[in-house]
Amino acid sequence: MRLTSLLNDATCHILLVVLDGLGGFADAEFDTELEQADTPNLDQLAAEGVVGLTQPAGAGITAGSGPGHLALFGYDPTEYELGRGVLSATGVEFDLQPGDIAARGNLCTLDDDGNVADRRAGRIADDRAQALTDALNEGVKVDGAEVMFRHISSHRVLAVLRGEGLDHRIADLDPQKTGVPPKDPQPLDPEAEHTASVLRDVDAAIRDVLADQDGADALLLRGFDTHHDLPSFADRYKLRAATVAIYPMYRGVAKLCGMDTLPRPDGLSGQVAAISDHWDDYDFFFLHHKKPDEAGHDGKRDEKVAAIEALDAVIPDLVALQPDVIAVTGDHSSPTQLSAHSWHPVPTLLWGPHVGRDDATSFGERACTVGLLGQRPTQELMPIMLASAGKLEKYGA
Amino acid sequence: MRLTSLLNDATCHILLVVLDGLGGFADAEFDTELEQADTPNLDQLAAEGVVGLTQPAGAGITAGSGPGHLALFGYDPTEYELGRGVLSATGVEFDLQPGDIAARGNLCTLDDDGNVADRRAGRIADDRAQALTDALNEGVKVDGAEVMFRHISSHRVLAVLRGEGLDHRIADLDPQKTGVPPKDPQPLDPEAEHTASVLRDVDAAIRDVLADQDGADALLLRGFDTHHDLPSFADRYKLRAATVAIYPMYRGVAKLCGMDTLPRPDGLSGQVAAISDHWDDYDFFFLHHKKPDEAGHDGKRDEKVAAIEALDAVIPDLVALQPDVIAVTGDHSSPTQLSAHSWHPVPTLLWGPHVGRDDATSFGERACTVGLLGQRPTQELMPIMLASAGKLEKYGA
Repeated sequence: MRLTSLLNDATCHILLVVLDGLGGFADAEFDTELEQADTPNLDQLAAEGVVGLTQPAGAGITAGSGPGHLALFGYDPTEYELGRGVLSATGVEFDLQPGDIAARGNLCTLDDDGNVADRRAGRIADDRAQALTDALNEGVKVDGAEVMFRHISSHRVLAVLRGEGLDHRIADLDPQKTGVPPKDPQPLDPEAEHTASVLRDVDAAIRDVLADQDGADALLLRGFDTHHDLPSFADRYKLRAATVAIYPMYRGVAKLCGMDTLPRPDGLSGQVAAISDHWDDYDFFFLHHKKPDEAGHDGKRDEKVAAIEALDAVIPDLVALQPDVIAVTGDHSSPTQLSAHSWHPVPTLLWGPHVGRDDATSFGERACTVGLLGQRPTQELMPIMLASAGKLEKYGA
Repeated sequence: MRLTSLLNDATCHILLVVLDGLGGFADAEFDTELEQADTPNLDQLAAEGVVGLTQPAGAGITAGSGPGHLALFGYDPTEYELGRGVLSATGVEFDLQPGDIAARGNLCTLDDDGNVADRRAGRIADDRAQALTDALNEGVKVDGAEVMFRHISSHRVLAVLRGEGLDHRIADLDPQKTGVPPKDPQPLDPEAEHTASVLRDVDAAIRDVLADQDGADALLLRGFDTHHDLPSFADRYKLRAATVAIYPMYRGVAKLCGMDTLPRPDGLSGQVAAISDHWDDYDFFFLHHKKPDEAGHDGKRDEKVAAIEALDAVIPDLVALQPDVIAVTGDHSSPTQLSAHSWHPVPTLLWGPHVGRDDATSFGERACTVGLLGQRPTQELMPIMLASAGKLEKYGA
């Protein structure tokens, strides 16, 4: 039985609200950030709907943003693997060709010993980073591949290699920590040895160009990947889908799934306004809120709590649109105690006229243990959203 | 590891009590029907046993009765797909031959424009429907197939086509609503075009015959299917199994799984008496209670509540038989708010001396969220019942 065989042609309104890195864990000192946050509107949705806990990529697995979002969109994240490079390319609307190799780069600073000093070059300003990207496009020439760069935001740069016989199975050059040198390009498969060799020349050329510039000394590449085709929301769910995400990578993964990307809104209120303006044009909206994850990475508890509260404040505007179902969840957990993504299950709520209710009266990790959603793979949310919005016919007589 | 390799030859007593369409959902106005019902005996079983929530065919999937029951019997409902026609044929003990095509028909009335006026011909009386079925058997003659009809109950009729080169991949003729004409037979596969053509003649011949009769104008066929073999309870579980179901379709699916069908009892007390009378002849009894689903379909909350309470009243008689395990659950949900089957998880309890206990003190959807059964596929109940009844040996040393 395939889900597609059960889909009807009804129009509907599904809102998927993703607080990036929402989940956390409680310890001797702290409640989770969501538990600590003052969220009267989310608590009301939890009281009027059903809650549970979701795992994007299986028990104990810490999901990246790519797999986390694919799971939210109902795709098996272990079947569809997307490198950060491809997500970044799609996010900046770079037209990746079959055979191209894409990677995400961090402009970084190095100390006198050639070790990484700041992985984000002091969160370099956009105009400076753009100038450095222009210089890289001008100056980086190697044998074996055309090399293209696109500035994304702050320290984030896309790098694309185009040439014969390239292979994306290359380990990250980014050591993910300071005080050590960037890693040498290493093939993850013997067939990628040529690509690793080309990348050594690329890395050297980048450093040469940046040596003449202010603001950064090297580009830490990671998430090497190549062009993929994903089944679209239209084919897979018979949904007209759009995103109001702001950050390139999330716009990118939405676009890979065939969602329209509405013009980049300015903040949460702009995102809500864009949904409202296009309410009748789409069946499914994906609202992405990045700030909880950023605060989680930085270990800033108060900022993560405030970011959650900021999302809570726009909930009444979403409810006023009278959708068939609102889902509020995260793509993974990002506890401030770890300053990183984590494997902890993600609090999740569904709200709508046919969703049902359980005994939860607030939205938080521990409140979600009494929920009717139970604990389940993130990937199962999408069929439940479709069912709650009247999109699925009965299976069997 | 295969379950069969762990089965021993012990005799046992397992009672599977299915309240058809048991589950529901709470909303701003209502508790679920089961929560609203006064069920002191089920509550006591819940307090003394373990509870949980089950999904017959996966997250978000609304199961029909066929897949719902296959899952309860421990068969993967996505592997064994049964059309309503085959279930109906088995239920009336029609001896379906390999190659036969079976469909369920609704005697219906048409308005002057040829649109469906009543999909159930006013829930036509049995004797009138039997007379119409006799007339169809007498009068419907077409080229390409022998056509046979059997009256099931009220408006429900079985139609069987027997002939060379027939194919069951035909879309339903029943439009499932009034005010539109019955659908023209359409092949779902090019190889079924001949069958669709034969069915057009059958449909015309049926209308000709019924035009001379009172009570119905056409037969809405659906659930075309052909003969299947399923592994039996005896082979699969080493259980001598019997059903005391009353409705043909449920007797049918039980029989397909190799259960004996005890003479059709008269109501719940008759079902309990039949189990008692045959207590030592079988290891497994399947008691099916249809009324909650009928009331759910009709959107009649009070009737669904009363149907649940009627089942509750016979629980002490089942407990008095001292079975090894009693399971009480549903094949799917049928919330009165939707007047249809739904995807909401089904409340489930197990009771018996070795089942264990959890913190639930009543039987209801929300009470089941604290249960030791957790949330799980319906298909997993059967191994737990077998274990609770001492039928499964240890796996591994």
